[in-house]
Amino acid sequence: MDHKGYKRKIYLEDKPRTEAKREILEAFQLPLEKEMIPAAEALGRATAEPIFARVSMPHYHASAMDGIAVMAENTYQAHEQNPLQLKLGVDFLYVDTGNPIPSPFNAVIMIEHVDVLDEETIEIIEPATPWQHIRPIGEDIVQEEMLFPQGHILRPADLGVLLASQQTVIPVTKKPVVTIIPTGNELVEADAELSSGKIIEFNGTVFANFVREWGGEPRLHEIVKDEPERIKAVLLEAAETSDIVVINAGSSAGSRDYTVHIIGEIGTVFTHGVAARPGKPVILGKINDKIVVGVPGYPVSAYLALEWFVKPLICKYLQIAEPKRPTIKVKLGRRIVSTMGAEDFVRMNIGYVNGQFVANPLTRAAGVTMSYVRADGLLVVPANVIGYEQGDVAEVELMRPLEEIKNAIMFCGSHDLTIDLLSSQLKANRTDMKIVSAHVGSMAGIMAIRKGEAHVAGIHLLDPATKQYNISYVKKILAGQDVVLYPFLRRKQGWILPKGNPVGIEKVTDVALKKVNFVNRQKGAGTRILFDMLLGEAGLTAEDIIGYEREMFSHLAVAAEVNGDSNSAGLGIFPAAKAMGLDFMPVADEEYDLLMTRSFFESEKGRQLMEIIQSPYFKQQVEKIGGYEVVENPEPKSLE
Amino acid sequence: MDHKGYKRKIYLEDKPRTEAKREILEAFQLPLEKEMIPAAEALGRATAEPIFARVSMPHYHASAMDGIAVMAENTYQAHEQNPLQLKLGVDFLYVDTGNPIPSPFNAVIMIEHVDVLDEETIEIIEPATPWQHIRPIGEDIVQEEMLFPQGHILRPADLGVLLASQQTVIPVTKKPVVTIIPTGNELVEADAELSSGKIIEFNGTVFANFVREWGGEPRLHEIVKDEPERIKAVLLEAAETSDIVVINAGSSAGSRDYTVHIIGEIGTVFTHGVAARPGKPVILGKINDKIVVGVPGYPVSAYLALEWFVKPLICKYLQIAEPKRPTIKVKLGRRIVSTMGAEDFVRMNIGYVNGQFVANPLTRAAGVTMSYVRADGLLVVPANVIGYEQGDVAEVELMRPLEEIKNAIMFCGSHDLTIDLLSSQLKANRTDMKIVSAHVGSMAGIMAIRKGEAHVAGIHLLDPATKQYNISYVKKILAGQDVVLYPFLRRKQGWILPKGNPVGIEKVTDVALKKVNFVNRQKGAGTRILFDMLLGEAGLTAEDIIGYEREMFSHLAVAAEVNGDSNSAGLGIFPAAKAMGLDFMPVADEEYDLLMTRSFFESEKGRQLMEIIQSPYFKQQVEKIGGYEVVENPEPKSLE
Repeated sequence: MDHKGYKRKIYLEDKPRTEAKREILEAFQLPLEKEMIPAAEALGRATAEPIFARVSMPHYHASAMDGIAVMAENTYQAHEQNPLQLKLGVDFLYVDTGNPIPSPFNAVIMIEHVDVLDEETIEIIEPATPWQHIRPIGEDIVQEEMLFPQGHILRPADLGVLLASQQTVIPVTKKPVVTIIPTGNELVEADAELSSGKIIEFNGTVFANFVREWGGEPRLHEIVKDEPERIKAVLLEAAETSDIVVINAGSSAGSRDYTVHIIGEIGTVFTHGVAARPGKPVILGKINDKIVVGVPGYPVSAYLALEWFVKPLICKYLQIAEPKRPTIKVKLGRRIVSTMGAEDFVRMNIGYVNGQFVANPLTRAAGVTMSYVRADGLLVVPANVIGYEQGDVAEVELMRPLEEIKNAIMFCGSHDLTIDLLSSQLKANRTDMKIVSAHVGSMAGIMAIRKGEAHVAGIHLLDPATKQYNISYVKKILAGQDVVLYPFLRRKQGWILPKGNPVGIEKVTDVALKKVNFVNRQKGAGTRILFDMLLGEAGLTAEDIIGYEREMFSHLAVAAEVNGDSNSAGLGIFPAAKAMGLDFMPVADEEYDLLMTRSFFESEKGRQLMEIIQSPYFKQQVEKIGGYEVVENPEPKSLE
Repeated sequence: MDHKGYKRKIYLEDKPRTEAKREILEAFQLPLEKEMIPAAEALGRATAEPIFARVSMPHYHASAMDGIAVMAENTYQAHEQNPLQLKLGVDFLYVDTGNPIPSPFNAVIMIEHVDVLDEETIEIIEPATPWQHIRPIGEDIVQEEMLFPQGHILRPADLGVLLASQQTVIPVTKKPVVTIIPTGNELVEADAELSSGKIIEFNGTVFANFVREWGGEPRLHEIVKDEPERIKAVLLEAAETSDIVVINAGSSAGSRDYTVHIIGEIGTVFTHGVAARPGKPVILGKINDKIVVGVPGYPVSAYLALEWFVKPLICKYLQIAEPKRPTIKVKLGRRIVSTMGAEDFVRMNIGYVNGQFVANPLTRAAGVTMSYVRADGLLVVPANVIGYEQGDVAEVELMRPLEEIKNAIMFCGSHDLTIDLLSSQLKANRTDMKIVSAHVGSMAGIMAIRKGEAHVAGIHLLDPATKQYNISYVKKILAGQDVVLYPFLRRKQGWILPKGNPVGIEKVTDVALKKVNFVNRQKGAGTRILFDMLLGEAGLTAEDIIGYEREMFSHLAVAAEVNGDSNSAGLGIFPAAKAMGLDFMPVADEEYDLLMTRSFFESEKGRQLMEIIQSPYFKQQVEKIGGYEVVENPEPKSLE
C-alpha cells in the first residue's frame, strides 16, 4: 500500500533500548538555562548551580536555653554547701532561648537551676563551664558553606535553610519545555459525542502529567490530523519553541505512519524500533538541535517509551539523576514467557500472602491502559532471558508504595460487582487497606487459595450431581487444607439480552436455534460451567453455539459486548445487565461464597473484611443494586 | 517569673505520641467537602468518592492490527496449497489499528499475511478464527466498572483512564486549609537587615511546603508578636477560616510561652508535651471544631512534630493512608544512647561501604536544621529501648531514595573546603553520584576507614617526631590493612584573626599572653594536633589558653566564631579566613592526603573520583580559591 506519497515500511529496527537511549542523550546538548526565583517558591525545583550560605545561623552567640547568662569564671566557687548570689545586670542577665549573649557573658545556666531570691538577686549552687548552653555562631549553618550542589531537588526543609542563610532568591534550572503533539484522524476530545471509530485522545494528558511529575513543563498541542504537511509544520514549530518534542502515534510502520519519513525529511532519525515490548515502535530523532520522540499509540507502549526516553532527557536537562523505582523480590505465581532478543515489560499484580510477595502478570496487551493503572509492579525480562517458570523468584520494580501492597487484600476468583463496593467500604474504615481483585473465574480462584497467591476467592460453582454450590469443589481441590467457606451472597444469574429482547431468547435452545452471537466467559468461570450444564441438559454442545469460543473475563464485559450487538446474548448476573440498560431473564439463584484460609479468616485483615460484610450499611448498599441478597449472620459452610 | 499575667509552667507532660495522635484524630471530625475539577488537572488530588466508567474503551469492536477485516467463516478453506482470493468491499475491508469492524465482519488478518493482487483483490493462504485481532468492547475499560475508590491519589495514567471513560470532571476532596502562624518578637523576614538577637523566620515556609507536599493548602500568616491578645485574635480568626491551625513557637514552658494558656482559654488543650525527642514541647488542642497544633521553635523539633500530628490530620481529611517512609536495616557505626520513657528520633547518615549499609548519627541538637537536611535516614528509638551498641543492626526510615545513598561516596575525616567543589564536580560528571561528607577530624577519619564506615578520609596529621605528614599514623593504626594514601593537596594552615589583627597575634605565645579568646578544634582534628604541637614547642599548656575547651568542627566554624569576636583567634586554613574577610597568618604548609582502601581506589566510584581530582578544570578551580596546590600526577605514598 502506498498512501499520500509515503511508502509503507513494514519492518522496524530492533535496537537495544540502552543503546538508543545513549545516542539521544549524547545528541541532547542544550545550554543550561537558569532562572532566579524566590526560595520560598522553589519546592521541587532543581538548583542550577551550587548554593552557598550568605550568613551564618545563628549569626550571633545565642542562648540555647531559658535561663541566665553569666561569666563562667565568676561561678567556679558555687557549691551546694556554698551557694553563690548573683546580681541582675552585673553578674547575670535573664535570657530566653535564642537571645543574644552579650560580651563578657560566656555561659548560660538553665532557669531550673536558678533560685530567685528577689527581683535583683538569684542564687546558684553549681558552677557553669565556659560556653555551656550557648549556641556558637554557625552551629547550624556556617557562612560560605555549600548548602546544596547543582542538580539538587529542593525539599521543604531545604527551603528553610536557604531562607535562614539569606538566600532568598536562588538560581534554579528552567523547566525544559516538552511539546506534546497528538496526531490522528480518529482522535476526538474526551467530552465529544462518541461514534464508531472515534477514539478519545487521552495519551496527551497522561504525557503532560508525566512530564510535569518529572520536572518538565508540558505544552499539550491540539489534535493534529494525519496530514503530512500539517504534521511537518507542527513539528518544525515545536522544535523551534520547545526543548523536547513528543509526537504521539504514527510511529509504527502502518499505512498512515508517516512520522518517521517526515522526521527524516526535516531532521535526522536515529532509531526506529527498539528491542523492547511493548513500546517497540518508537522513533528517536532530532529536528534542528531538539530531540523528537515519536511514541506508539497504544497507551502502555506509549507510557513505557516516554519513561525510557523522555524522562532521561528531562533529568539530563535538570542535572539530576534519573529516579529509579524501588525493587523487591517476588515469587512468580505463573509462568512468564518472553521473546529472546527483546526486553519484555510485564505489568504485575503483587500480593502479600502468608508472609511472602507473590506476583502474577496482568494482561500483556499494550492497549489495556488499566493493566498499567492496576499494576503493582513491573517485571523487566532482559533480552537474553526466555522467561521464568512458575515459582521462580524474580525482581520487580514497584509501581506503588510497598506499604500499600502489604496492606492489600488479594481477592481473586469470580467477578462480582459488589467487590468494588466492599473495597470502597473497607478503605472508608481503614484508609490503609484496600482490596485488589483479579477476575480469573471460580476455578482459578480455588487454585489461587491452594497455591497461597490470594487471601480470598469469590466462587459460585454448581455441582450438577449434588445441585449444591461450591462445597464439593472445595472438598476435592483443597482436601487437607484448613480453609473457610463463608456464605456471602445469593444472586441472580440469567440471560443478558439486548434491550427489548429483539430476537426473543428465553432458554438455552433459543441461543442455539436463533443463531445469535453468544458472548461466553473464560474457562473455569462459574458462569461458563453453568452455561455448559444448561447446554448438556438441553442435549446441545459447543458446536451448536455461535461465539462459544469468544471469552470475556467479567459480567460487565459480557454485558458491554451484548450492548454492542443487537443479535447477541450472554449469561451473567442481573446488575451487569442493569448497569447497561439491557434485558435480563433469570436462570438460576446462585450461592456466591467467599473461600479463604482459616489463618486469613482469623487475621486482622480477615476480621476487618468480615466486619464490613456484616455491617448493615454494606448490606443495604448491596441490596439497593438489585438481584442480590446478603446472607444474614452467616456461619462457615461445613466441609466435613 | 511571671510575664504579662501568664504563669510560667516549667513541666511538660510526657504523653505517648501515639496516644496524643489518636486523640486529635478522633477529635478531628469535619464534613467531607468535595469539589468538581477537570480530570486533566487532577494530578495528585484525592478522589472524594468512588469513580465509575461512563463509557467502555474501546466502545466498539476495533481492529487490533493493521490488516483486513474478513468474515472468519468464509476463510476456512484457505490453505497454502489452496490460496483464497477475496474481493474488496465484498469479502474484505482494509482496516488500520483502531478502525471499527462493521458487522458482519468478525476477524482481522494482519497485513503481513495478505498478498495484494490488484486494487480490488487480495489472496490469503491461512484461515482466520472468529474474533481474532479484534479488540472486544470494553477490553480496556468496561462501562460502569469502578475505576478508583474514594481516597485514591491520582497519577498521570489514572487521568488517562478518567478521560477515556468520559469522566472529564471529577469529584476530588477539597485540600484542607492549614493556616500557619509564626510568632515571636525576635522574628524577622529573610530579607531583613540582621542584628544580634534577630532570627530569620523560615519555619513557616518549611511548614507551608510540607503541607503542600502532603496534599493540604497552606496559608502562611504574617509574623505575630508575642502579645497574648494579638495571638488570641489571630488564633480565633484562623480557626474560623481554616481546617487546621498550626502555631509556631511559644509551645514550650518558657516565660514567653503563653500559647498553651491562650488555647486553654479559647478552646481545649488535649496535650502539652509528648514523650518524644526532639519535638517534646508540642501543644495539641481544639478551638471551636478546628484542631490547633502548637509546634516548638527549634526547626528539627518543629518538622518532626508537624509530621507526627499535622500530616495524619491532612491524610484523614483526604481519606488516604498516611504515607510511611521505606525502611532499611543498617549497621550502627557508633553507640546510640537514648532516654528510657521517651522515643528518640535520631537523624542518621547512611553509607554503603563494602556491600553493607552503615549508619552514624548526626548531631542531635534540635536547633541544627542541617542535621535534618543532611540526614539520609531517621532512627526511631522506641520509648522502652535505652539505645543501641556500636555494631548493632537497626531499622531506619529512609529520608532519601536508597539509590542515592547507594551511589554516594562517604567522605570523612578532616574538613576541607575543596571537598564541596569535588562533590559538585563529581555530580556534574555523574548526576547519580555525590559525596557525603562528615567533618570528624583526621584521627576519626582513619578510624572510619579501619571500621569500614567510609570510602575516603581526608587527613593531615603531622608527626612531631618525623616531621612527616600522615604516613606514620596510617602505618600504626591501619597495620595490615590494604589501604592507599593518595597525595591530594598542599595547603596553608595559619592563624585566623579578626580583620586588621587588632590584638597583634603573630605566634602561639601571643595567643596565651594577649589573653584572646581562642577558638579550638575538636579532639583528633589535624589542626588541633598542630596547635598542641605549637603549644608544646613554646612550653605552654592548655591551661594557658582561654577557650582551649571550645571546640568547633570545621575551619569555617572557627572563622565564623573569630568573625564574631574582635578579641579572638583561631587556627585553620587560608580559604576559611578569606571567605569571611578575616586576616590570616601562615604557620605551616600541610599535606592533606586522601586515605582509602585499595578496593575502593580500584572501584568504579574510586576511579570516577580520581578522574575528577586529576582533571585540569578541578585543579584550576581549587587553585583559584588560594592557599592550595593540587598535587600533580600523584603516586600513592609508600606505606612500606
